[in-house]
Amino acid sequence: MQRVEPQDFSRVLSSMCTRPHPRAREAAERFLATNPGDPGTYEAVSELETEAVEMLGTITGLPNPEGYIASGGTEANIQAVRIARNRADTDRPNMVAPESAHFSFNKAADLLNVELRTAPTDADHRADMEAMAELVDDDTVVVIGVAGSTEYGRVDPIPAIADLARDNDALCHVDAAWGGFVLPFTEKRWHFGHADVDTITIDPHKMGQAAVPAGGLLTHSQALLDELAVDTPYLESKSQATLTGTRSGAGVASAVAAMEELWPMGYRRQYYESMENAEWLAEQLAARGHDVVEPELPIVAADMTMPVTEDLRRRGWRISKTGADEMRVVCMPHVTKSMLRSFVADLDWF
Amino acid sequence: MQRVEPQDFSRVLSSMCTRPHPRAREAAERFLATNPGDPGTYEAVSELETEAVEMLGTITGLPNPEGYIASGGTEANIQAVRIARNRADTDRPNMVAPESAHFSFNKAADLLNVELRTAPTDADHRADMEAMAELVDDDTVVVIGVAGSTEYGRVDPIPAIADLARDNDALCHVDAAWGGFVLPFTEKRWHFGHADVDTITIDPHKMGQAAVPAGGLLTHSQALLDELAVDTPYLESKSQATLTGTRSGAGVASAVAAMEELWPMGYRRQYYESMENAEWLAEQLAARGHDVVEPELPIVAADMTMPVTEDLRRRGWRISKTGADEMRVVCMPHVTKSMLRSFVADLDWF
Repeated sequence: MQRVEPQDFSRVLSSMCTRPHPRAREAAERFLATNPGDPGTYEAVSELETEAVEMLGTITGLPNPEGYIASGGTEANIQAVRIARNRADTDRPNMVAPESAHFSFNKAADLLNVELRTAPTDADHRADMEAMAELVDDDTVVVIGVAGSTEYGRVDPIPAIADLARDNDALCHVDAAWGGFVLPFTEKRWHFGHADVDTITIDPHKMGQAAVPAGGLLTHSQALLDELAVDTPYLESKSQATLTGTRSGAGVASAVAAMEELWPMGYRRQYYESMENAEWLAEQLAARGHDVVEPELPIVAADMTMPVTEDLRRRGWRISKTGADEMRVVCMPHVTKSMLRSFVADLDWF
Repeated sequence: MQRVEPQDFSRVLSSMCTRPHPRAREAAERFLATNPGDPGTYEAVSELETEAVEMLGTITGLPNPEGYIASGGTEANIQAVRIARNRADTDRPNMVAPESAHFSFNKAADLLNVELRTAPTDADHRADMEAMAELVDDDTVVVIGVAGSTEYGRVDPIPAIADLARDNDALCHVDAAWGGFVLPFTEKRWHFGHADVDTITIDPHKMGQAAVPAGGLLTHSQALLDELAVDTPYLESKSQATLTGTRSGAGVASAVAAMEELWPMGYRRQYYESMENAEWLAEQLAARGHDVVEPELPIVAADMTMPVTEDLRRRGWRISKTGADEMRVVCMPHVTKSMLRSFVADLDWF
């Protein structure tokens, strides 16, 4: 396996993860042999996790945040639905989300036996509040909003979603797994400080530039987190709220290192750079006659048929597509203007 | 955070994880920025995962293994229960396990709405088959055996458990999360080759000496794994069977590197060394008048009251306890004879 080359990011346009910041990589390497899942044994990394949660609280407008560093956004989303299900008093729980919600909510539905009801999005790919409201009923345990959708980078009207949840005695969960580290530099209203939000997913290992695995689950109160607690007989700690047991200290340390280094100015600079790249690419594609979904956060989608993207794949480009078969480019920190220039040059070649 | 020291293993007797093998560490560092959860983008690490599963198949006596590298044993155990629940035809599923089963099955019960029924163990801390049989009924979807229990390192009578499962049309799951890498050097009958087992948890990041996170879930057939599949609209792959989405390539690469380096002779050597250490410690404790649970795999438990272990903790030792409040020492690869000598010397000091 010495001959296997690890990842080359020079043509990756498909990933919501990125090359970790050098400080984040260094911290991950130092804390590789630690396990925040056993805080009595691994104290140093456990304290770092407290720091990480504090910093995520700052980013999401929550002065006394509760939560933890999860394996990723999928775990955080599952856990948010689990909190809502466990605190509710119904045998037939359901969750309501826009159809733009990530497929991790399908996993949550299967795992947790919570029906997933998805509402069509509006013409600009955001949650349609009328359609959402129609799906909510007495058995709705959580209403979900997306702040930076996977396909188009759209931000749902979170305050309206929080109101809908509150009016129906359901929780409000915001999935900002990817968007959480760029949204603070926009005018969007998406976090605890903007609306009556109960839980948020925000992943340091996406736009936060930490090493995988470093997802984030934040809850508005300890009582919500306690819905997840399971007794831990063999550990020095008494209970565990995480989905997994042994966890990556590398991810935790890496998240702290990235946030210490980049929050807020480094992330701000990256956001502007990535947005400029996304807008540049959108213009180039539009100029070539493609229908482009206007980028609002650094994701570009365009109606290019799959044979073209297959050809691109053969040239080494890693691109993905939306459910509507549009080509989708995620302008992560490793995606530079010169990379996009050679991508467009390759497009022109066909 | 530069001043925070990562883990010092020189007094850690409480962990089921260990310092990764140097080759495993090196591989983890090289593959830090990869995500086997997105195999279309991250092809190299995805191929390594296939290799890892093949090697785990060799270790567990399964010629054509299916499965994946999970975040850890908790995920693998949850997924095994989920497979069993999803394929069964009952509204009130239950699982039957010995009381020695890991607390991850409590998480699985809460997550999946599967009742956990635990049977008392026999005088030597193994599953009591009569007690297990009494708990099984038509709604039992999986019968669980432990091969290397968390508290005492005991191996349940797996062939009898598999028979019990088969007779009741339930699946048989074996939790060898910790034991899986030492059991091949014993006479125990615990794996796919010994009995009609459906799924096994075996974690490279425990006795396998890989870096966290590298757990393992193996299934007897693709059909079982398919019970977990969820569609993945934005990825180039079509579906995903894992609990998490983005996953650690570091863990996967590290598992392959450790297994390539250590299977079988390195693990064999380590097993004998760890067993010798465990037996030495057991003798020392017995000689000092403590009741010791005879180590069968490299775990030692002894009836020392908690105030003593609190004193030890203040001297830097990291030890844990069993549910019966016995002191518990896990003889992992980083636990050397000289470490145990100074531990016993500290015990004598009190």
